[in-house]
Amino acid sequence: ARTSLPEVIYAENKSVEHLLDIFDAHVQSQTPLLMTRLTDAQLHALAPHNVFCDLVARTAVFRAPKIAPNAPKLAVVTGGTSDHKVAKEVISTAQFFGLNAVLFADLGVAGLWRLQERLPELREFPLIVAIAGMEGALFSVLAGLVCAPVIAVPTSVGYGVSQGGQAALTSALASCAPGVLTVNIDNGFGAAAAAAKILRPTAVSEKDTGAIVF
Amino acid sequence: ARTSLPEVIYAENKSVEHLLDIFDAHVQSQTPLLMTRLTDAQLHALAPHNVFCDLVARTAVFRAPKIAPNAPKLAVVTGGTSDHKVAKEVISTAQFFGLNAVLFADLGVAGLWRLQERLPELREFPLIVAIAGMEGALFSVLAGLVCAPVIAVPTSVGYGVSQGGQAALTSALASCAPGVLTVNIDNGFGAAAAAAKILRPTAVSEKDTGAIVF
Amino acid sequence: ARTSLPEVIYAENKSVEHLLDIFDAHVQSQTPLLMTRLTDAQLHALAPHNVFCDLVARTAVFRAPKIAPNAPKLAVVTGGTSDHKVAKEVISTAQFFGLNAVLFADLGVAGLWRLQERLPELREFPLIVAIAGMEGALFSVLAGLVCAPVIAVPTSVGYGVSQGGQAALTSALASCAPGVLTVNIDNGFGAAAAAAKILRPTAVSEKDTGAIVF
Amino acid sequence: ARTSLPEVIYAENKSVEHLLDIFDAHVQSQTPLLMTRLTDAQLHALAPHNVFCDLVARTAVFRAPKIAPNAPKLAVVTGGTSDHKVAKEVISTAQFFGLNAVLFADLGVAGLWRLQERLPELREFPLIVAIAGMEGALFSVLAGLVCAPVIAVPTSVGYGVSQGGQAALTSALASCAPGVLTVNIDNGFGAAAAAAKILRPTAVSEKDTGAIVF
Amino acid sequence: ARTSLPEVIYAENKSVEHLLDIFDAHVQSQTPLLMTRLTDAQLHALAPHNVFCDLVARTAVFRAPKIAPNAPKLAVVTGGTSDHKVAKEVISTAQFFGLNAVLFADLGVAGLWRLQERLPELREFPLIVAIAGMEGALFSVLAGLVCAPVIAVPTSVGYGVSQGGQAALTSALASCAPGVLTVNIDNGFGAAAAAAKILRPTAVSEKDTGAIVF
Amino acid sequence: ARTSLPEVIYAENKSVEHLLDIFDAHVQSQTPLLMTRLTDAQLHALAPHNVFCDLVARTAVFRAPKIAPNAPKLAVVTGGTSDHKVAKEVISTAQFFGLNAVLFADLGVAGLWRLQERLPELREFPLIVAIAGMEGALFSVLAGLVCAPVIAVPTSVGYGVSQGGQAALTSALASCAPGVLTVNIDNGFGAAAAAAKILRPTAVSEKDTGAIVF
Amino acid sequence: ARTSLPEVIYAENKSVEHLLDIFDAHVQSQTPLLMTRLTDAQLHALAPHNVFCDLVARTAVFRAPKIAPNAPKLAVVTGGTSDHKVAKEVISTAQFFGLNAVLFADLGVAGLWRLQERLPELREFPLIVAIAGMEGALFSVLAGLVCAPVIAVPTSVGYGVSQGGQAALTSALASCAPGVLTVNIDNGFGAAAAAAKILRPTAVSEKDTGAIVF
Amino acid sequence: ARTSLPEVIYAENKSVEHLLDIFDAHVQSQTPLLMTRLTDAQLHALAPHNVFCDLVARTAVFRAPKIAPNAPKLAVVTGGTSDHKVAKEVISTAQFFGLNAVLFADLGVAGLWRLQERLPELREFPLIVAIAGMEGALFSVLAGLVCAPVIAVPTSVGYGVSQGGQAALTSALASCAPGVLTVNIDNGFGAAAAAAKILRPTAVSEKDTGAIVF
Ligand SMILES: Nc1ncnc2c1ncn2[C@@H]1O[C@H](COP(=O)(O)O)[C@@H](O)[C@H]1O
Ligand SMILES: Nc1ncnc2c1ncn2[C@@H]1O[C@H](COP(=O)(O)O)[C@@H](O)[C@H]1O
Ligand SMILES: Nc1ncnc2c1ncn2[C@@H]1O[C@H](COP(=O)(O)O)[C@@H](O)[C@H]1O
Ligand SMILES: Nc1ncnc2c1ncn2[C@@H]1O[C@H](COP(=O)(O)O)[C@@H](O)[C@H]1O
Ligand SMILES: [Mg+2]
Ligand SMILES: [Mg+2]
Ligand SMILES: [Mg+2]
Ligand SMILES: [Mg+2]
Ligand SMILES: [Mg+2]
Ligand SMILES: [Mg+2]
Ligand SMILES: [Mg+2]
Ligand SMILES: [Mg+2]
Repeated sequence: ARTSLPEVIYAENKSVEHLLDIFDAHVQSQTPLLMTRLTDAQLHALAPHNVFCDLVARTAVFRAPKIAPNAPKLAVVTGGTSDHKVAKEVISTAQFFGLNAVLFADLGVAGLWRLQERLPELREFPLIVAIAGMEGALFSVLAGLVCAPVIAVPTSVGYGVSQGGQAALTSALASCAPGVLTVNIDNGFGAAAAAAKILRPTAVSEKDTGAIVF
Repeated sequence: ARTSLPEVIYAENKSVEHLLDIFDAHVQSQTPLLMTRLTDAQLHALAPHNVFCDLVARTAVFRAPKIAPNAPKLAVVTGGTSDHKVAKEVISTAQFFGLNAVLFADLGVAGLWRLQERLPELREFPLIVAIAGMEGALFSVLAGLVCAPVIAVPTSVGYGVSQGGQAALTSALASCAPGVLTVNIDNGFGAAAAAAKILRPTAVSEKDTGAIVF
Repeated sequence: ARTSLPEVIYAENKSVEHLLDIFDAHVQSQTPLLMTRLTDAQLHALAPHNVFCDLVARTAVFRAPKIAPNAPKLAVVTGGTSDHKVAKEVISTAQFFGLNAVLFADLGVAGLWRLQERLPELREFPLIVAIAGMEGALFSVLAGLVCAPVIAVPTSVGYGVSQGGQAALTSALASCAPGVLTVNIDNGFGAAAAAAKILRPTAVSEKDTGAIVF
Repeated sequence: ARTSLPEVIYAENKSVEHLLDIFDAHVQSQTPLLMTRLTDAQLHALAPHNVFCDLVARTAVFRAPKIAPNAPKLAVVTGGTSDHKVAKEVISTAQFFGLNAVLFADLGVAGLWRLQERLPELREFPLIVAIAGMEGALFSVLAGLVCAPVIAVPTSVGYGVSQGGQAALTSALASCAPGVLTVNIDNGFGAAAAAAKILRPTAVSEKDTGAIVF
Repeated sequence: ARTSLPEVIYAENKSVEHLLDIFDAHVQSQTPLLMTRLTDAQLHALAPHNVFCDLVARTAVFRAPKIAPNAPKLAVVTGGTSDHKVAKEVISTAQFFGLNAVLFADLGVAGLWRLQERLPELREFPLIVAIAGMEGALFSVLAGLVCAPVIAVPTSVGYGVSQGGQAALTSALASCAPGVLTVNIDNGFGAAAAAAKILRPTAVSEKDTGAIVF
Repeated sequence: ARTSLPEVIYAENKSVEHLLDIFDAHVQSQTPLLMTRLTDAQLHALAPHNVFCDLVARTAVFRAPKIAPNAPKLAVVTGGTSDHKVAKEVISTAQFFGLNAVLFADLGVAGLWRLQERLPELREFPLIVAIAGMEGALFSVLAGLVCAPVIAVPTSVGYGVSQGGQAALTSALASCAPGVLTVNIDNGFGAAAAAAKILRPTAVSEKDTGAIVF
Repeated sequence: ARTSLPEVIYAENKSVEHLLDIFDAHVQSQTPLLMTRLTDAQLHALAPHNVFCDLVARTAVFRAPKIAPNAPKLAVVTGGTSDHKVAKEVISTAQFFGLNAVLFADLGVAGLWRLQERLPELREFPLIVAIAGMEGALFSVLAGLVCAPVIAVPTSVGYGVSQGGQAALTSALASCAPGVLTVNIDNGFGAAAAAAKILRPTAVSEKDTGAIVF
Repeated sequence: ARTSLPEVIYAENKSVEHLLDIFDAHVQSQTPLLMTRLTDAQLHALAPHNVFCDLVARTAVFRAPKIAPNAPKLAVVTGGTSDHKVAKEVISTAQFFGLNAVLFADLGVAGLWRLQERLPELREFPLIVAIAGMEGALFSVLAGLVCAPVIAVPTSVGYGVSQGGQAALTSALASCAPGVLTVNIDNGFGAAAAAAKILRPTAVSEKDTGAIVF
């Protein structure tokens, strides 16, 4: 690819055969490859090959770069258990792009003291990805407590008015705390890709220079 | 009226003449009357009469009951300046129903320390009405910090996805903190009426008994 | 938990393993636990253990408190058969929180005489949870006939414009009868939790004092 | 017109000149004409002419037919004051089509006894037009209490979720009481036109025969 | 039932056991019963009993009344094949209520000549139920060509913007042809019930008198 | 401009000064210019200059090309009076692009015979722009009666469910008659621009060749 | 059929038996037939017969016309893999109507150089069908780079805000590049039918003349 | 304020008196202040004071910090004229926070060559704020051409489906180009605040350390 990031395949509507063809091409060229939103059948077909599969994140990685000791750090905060699989997609993707991603799980606002206990640690990070469903109050609360920008990933967790993630999405967009940026519902990949473009890990920024010849 | 609450007029689509007729009937019978959502023209027409008008709340009261020294206490919390006029409607209505309503202004979650400073006071109240627009994170945060139930009044404050109050409304309904109950956008009257039915100030509960003969 | 209510687990997106871990921890500490929105697999896994499962409500309870003889009373009214499983979630939760919940089934407004026959009984309750799908007219009708506040639970019953519960939800929020408070569609748990916070059964309010140390 | 009903002009987007041209043509041919949704400027321009203007309904009639002594009867029920101007459009239109329209005002469900008092009278009518805004519970309640079919006219009365009439519209469509038929929000004209087609007053049905030569 | 129509059960969320209980009670009392929106399991359970099942309409009837020779006639018009199962629900229900229902299939507006060929027949009916999905142009076209009122049943046929029936529903409500009345999407039952209330077949109107004792 | 069409300015959010600057530049270069969606103030400012203003269409034209004798013909059909100003925008724009645009006004489907009378003429056109608000049934009906493709322009005419043009838009998109293509609500300009790209009047197609050097 | 296009069956809600009946009738009369949106069961039932089935497009064709050597050319452009099956429906339908359809796959705007490389070829086509999901930026970009009109087919590809195709649909309709015409989400058939009406391949236009006798 | 950014007042619902009070307090303390979304009346009242007002951006600044020579650079790209006032809000805010903001106006995708000409310059910036209404294709196109992250500000420019900015918002969120982050419609302030948190100009980051004592 001619962009600054190594190649990522969105697997959702690809047949297993098509996906294996893409994979084989990468094995030939030995270029790194991340596949996201893999179905059970796709994961099953990839498993025997030389890839690292994450069954919760539903990702598979070929030739992921090593994360440098001084790699930029990214905090990944979730509101509750149900946000876990999106958090794993963020982490898989962030690592593929060379970031040092650290998970802070279950810090939802219904029990604000849990978030408060972890605040000193969280304040050490230059960037936070916050993942929450339901009413998405976590985004505003977090952005009001830290200096770093917050990338909000609303999740399609919940029922009634929060079904599909709309309530959390509008909370992220309407946040009265400055510094909240939003991606699509459940788009863990997008949040991590933007994080990599912001934090510019060495691997990524090297490839950057000169790579675009549009 | 045969219900447990004294009569309240929703003025929004009534002509000035019609409104004055209703008012005159109450003057005759000397029964208490609250009018809400008054237009400028309606407020102007009522001003010379024996009523108490609140220009911010857009309410007018005739023969409001005295609030008893031991009247139940109601906390009315707002997120920001823009929520003020709805808060005033809550307070006018609550007082008309015999409650001792106390305002806690500008405790929005973008600056969580302001809310934190007032928490000890807030925890003394048996019931809280919370008023917020934008993303409405205040509802969840508050309900996660106090034992009392929280009546959420989303306000039509904001622009883009929060225009008209939808973002705050869905935040209230989808709240992951137990104990949040919701009324319609900007419905300060409804929140106060429900509060009166919950807290049952003496005046109101007396009228209660036997009043309904459906 | 540091809040006024004993712990409740929202099971919807938890793996069976994760759920059993949480359950084991409670067995160790002998603290009460309610689990809601259990899947078939989760109910199956919990069944052999020392819990009370309700297959209609899809709840399971560990060490539920005894309901005191003078426990506050809660009326739970449904519009039709389809609202039954949400009613059972309200009742399971209310009992777990120490309330004396009584069911009034099938009082929908299409046959208003059924509601009228039960009115004298209903008027003895300090609080009513009303559960209805379709057009949700029950909320307004009930609130116009009783003095107690009404917590409306719109249900996702119906098709066309009422599919997913939106028509019933907007009816609850827009109700022209004062005293209607609303929770999310199908949120029986939320209605019961708010009811417990309003009615403060002994068990709950004891734990209340001092329990929050935010 | 070749249809069964005399001509009605929807004035909303017509210039005053255009409207007067249409009016003059009818004066020439001496055929009856109803104009609906007239603006102030249009009403002002029509006033000096030989028409009957209703400033609340915003209608003007030229050569309205006499209503026969045995004309079919139509009940027109409103929920509240704000529904009055739509009721007047129903009545103007129904009379223009030869129906004997009778108004039952302010029978909203928040005070169900008012509706109950008028039930014996209402049950004498072969058809009812019910007009309500807010949550529109009136439609279901009425249809559950009378044998006649009910034509529901949701009104754009209210704010928040009922703004624009959507809540009342979905209540009408989702009604669990059989016999409710719906027209567009605020469409008093449409309700009366359908009523005339159902009740077939003599004048109208005469014109009926043979008139259509498509 | 105390209403003017014999009893109809909406089966959608009832268990097979519950449904059979209701059915048994009717067998005891020998009162007529219509069941709609039956699932496969429910139809299977009812099949061995003394009922008439319609697998397309998904209805079952016990002791349907004979349709009188001079029963009022109802035209049931569909736009396309996909609207057939809703048409069958209309017909089952109309017959149960004593109407003489006649089907006019596949008269969609994409081939207007098919509708035109049947117009002379259609004009003989005092009332028409029109059933259409997609964009629902059939409602306006039909109402512009006949004198009878048209009850529109939008169907959940189609994809994209017509998925779920919304496009057809708004077409029915916004129709510029006077005389269109609307029911909920796919609500064949509601259309037929309203038709029976309008046309008052002998059986139905007899039961009418005196039956309501609210 | 480097595209195949001469330059068109969308005036809606431009200041009068900015607009006059753009206009002056065109006067200098003597290149043709169309301005659409002009406000009163903008029209007033342009009036003294050498432009042709259409106050209904709200357009102004500088150096419009002559329409060739053999220019391609475009039929512009409206449903009702309220669609007139959009029709004028179509015609202004089509003429500016060199098309011979012919208006067929007031052929709405509520009176299908009017459309039928003009059908023979309409069938002579290679392309039709149809403009309708309300329920937009005109699009399907027309496309079912002619061989030419139909470009649908939904208009923001109407109230309730058709307010803003949504009902007409979904009717156009969901049309069951093949050959309907849609543009944005009220987008007369877009319909005419697409028509010019389809019909390729000489002036336009000449400019075409070689003009794009991306 | 009396329209200009040979017959096409929309199979979605037809039973296998019904479909085979329609097919047999065509075999009798030897008239061409296209079937779209076939289910697995329908495709399976048609397979043994003398038809050409496309399992990706989910279409089957009987007696497709030969495509003339000088048949009009249609470019079919897709944004990504997920748009492939809609592209196949466009191509099947276009060929059935006598067009020479050419596929340009995977030219999405995330990698604009791929589109740029194919531009010289694309500029040779008189008409382009563009197929894209997600945010649908492809429509505007393409229309800004070619002279030909662009028919946009939004696809129901994606998740969150693009789920169901709404984001791509509004992008097509709101496109700021002149010359974009839109059909319903996933409506490959409709795009190809309109293309045939615009490009008028010989076979089709012959049938045209005189065929409509409405 | 205890956050990392100097204080900003959202003026939209504040009275002139209230605003002047806030302003006076800042004059006393000599702390910097930015006011956004000022009304005409508010701007008029502030004008005589020692503030810098931007009538297009509708902002006023008191004691804005000097922008350091080596201040981080921010590119601000607009699609068209109508996006200008939001761009000015971005620039006012960014400068107040110490960023060196550079405007690239009118680079909308309908004329892609304009964007292409400025690409080399744009590629020098570490962060881009892109502002577009209508269909918002600019966000994806830009993000596909540069390495820097793109903060998308959808604007409420346009009519029909793009009215209010929804079409542009969903385009930003659904973008298939990695690296797009979104803020609320018209929220120029929010984009600039997030940019400052990402780019950390010296002034801002200094205040950062130790300032938060939650
Ligand atoms: N989970 C994901 N969500 C959204 N976009 C993705 C995802 N994974 C990959 N992509 C994007 O999709 C593009 C690849 O699409 P495709 O060519 O269809 O595989 C890449 O440029 C990625 O930027
Ligand atoms: N208030 C109204 N609402 C909806 N339709 C109306 C109304 N008044 C008249 N109409 C219909 O509009 C048509 C006349 O439209 P027009 O030719 O534009 O005046 C008539 O056929 C009436 O059926
Ligand atoms: N995939 C499709 N999407 C939308 N309309 C279609 C499709 N296939 C066929 N049609 C239309 O549907 C009509 C046939 O409908 P039917 O009579 O139900 O088979 C034909 O006139 C076609 O114009
Ligand atoms: N134009 C704007 N849009 C959204 N939020 C804003 C805007 N201007 C200021 N704010 C935020 O609003 C808060 C101040 O709100 P208030 O106390 O009501 O003046 C500040 O923290 C800002 O972060
Ligand atoms: Mg959460
Ligand atoms: Mg707020
Ligand atoms: Mg119900
Ligand atoms: Mg009402
Ligand atoms: Mg149809
Ligand atoms: Mg029209
Ligand atoms: Mg795409
Ligand atoms: Mg733009």
